[in-house]
Amino acid sequence: MNQVICTVDVVLLTLQDDGLKVALLKRDREPFKDVIALPGGYIHADGDRDARDAALRVLKEKTGIEAPYLEQLATFSGPARDPRGWSISVTYYALVSSDVIERANHPDVKLTSVDRQVKLPFDHRLIVETAVSRLRSKSQYSSLPCYLAGETFTLPQLQRVYEALMGEPINKVSFRRKITEMDMLEAIEGKFEAAGAHRPAQLYRLKSKFKQQLQLLERGL
Amino acid sequence: MNQVICTVDVVLLTLQDDGLKVALLKRDREPFKDVIALPGGYIHADGDRDARDAALRVLKEKTGIEAPYLEQLATFSGPARDPRGWSISVTYYALVSSDVIERANHPDVKLTSVDRQVKLPFDHRLIVETAVSRLRSKSQYSSLPCYLAGETFTLPQLQRVYEALMGEPINKVSFRRKITEMDMLEAIEGKFEAAGAHRPAQLYRLKSKFKQQLQLLERGL
Repeated sequence: MNQVICTVDVVLLTLQDDGLKVALLKRDREPFKDVIALPGGYIHADGDRDARDAALRVLKEKTGIEAPYLEQLATFSGPARDPRGWSISVTYYALVSSDVIERANHPDVKLTSVDRQVKLPFDHRLIVETAVSRLRSKSQYSSLPCYLAGETFTLPQLQRVYEALMGEPINKVSFRRKITEMDMLEAIEGKFEAAGAHRPAQLYRLKSKFKQQLQLLERGL
Repeated sequence: MNQVICTVDVVLLTLQDDGLKVALLKRDREPFKDVIALPGGYIHADGDRDARDAALRVLKEKTGIEAPYLEQLATFSGPARDPRGWSISVTYYALVSSDVIERANHPDVKLTSVDRQVKLPFDHRLIVETAVSRLRSKSQYSSLPCYLAGETFTLPQLQRVYEALMGEPINKVSFRRKITEMDMLEAIEGKFEAAGAHRPAQLYRLKSKFKQQLQLLERGL
């Protein structure tokens, strides 16, 4: 058995001005020192409980963000993706609202549109594209977009998040029915948000059991 | 960086008598020598092009089966899943019709019902359950079940495969519409199969471009 380099990489995604952004940062060491890339690092067999734990550790170290919604994406591997040798990267995607990134206020993190073809080292471009495609297709039939909506939100705000991800308008009645069906939100008693000329809109939040556990729809939006 | 053990494991699934079966075999070495387990093995950094290539190599070596439909499932990792040390297993699931397994006729392969709670070493039980759950949920909106149906099949036969996976009857009209929508089958000219009192049924096969590439439905069955 030859040595295989074992790493994790995290695609941290957020919505900003209705556009999907990925968090990138300048690498502080070789290979690709000073090049913008995904936050990533070695798995520590002497400390990490599993690859997910390594991904959470790396994300916290490199971006200051703790305990986001995080899901395994896929594992990328081969002799050529890393100049150091045959390597495996177990990749994850994490979703947070943009104010979580603002609050963490990490000087090295750069939010970049996922559609901007910034050149990335390793196979990080492929990893980002895989994450975006997974997020977009899963948004149709799950609570995934809620993790981009912030701690509290109104239903029109949540609908705009779904629409931004799916790239098309959604019928309001059908949207409300699907949200009710997923049964993952709770109204925050007495909390409303002014909505221009309309009457104030009820504020909602995710029920606590769905903060780390996705809710699925049997049929898509 | 400490050494991480890097392996692949394959969940080879087939349908037999309308029941979903997984291929298991007796391990020929420690740990768990002589215990029934999933086909798996080390990644060979000196020969494998990537983890997928390793999975195909291991599957061929251990079961005699080549080039099935194979998809990455998930990566399992941690210090306790393998007694040899901190390990990663990049897992795959493969789908074949039961006659492919019969033709390979490998003396060590044992087909076992996925619902039979045979005790398995490592975290192989969890890996099998993850594969079955992925297959069942993906069957609703993709061509995945076709890979269990054999080289050629009639539409009623294919419907029975979908029904066996989804565990419920499917409306014939809606099934035919979805199959037409996926546009992944071709009729084999002049080939029919006798169907009891009914008129002979047209035989179909997967169009060649879909032999390794899944076709998805926008809305599920």
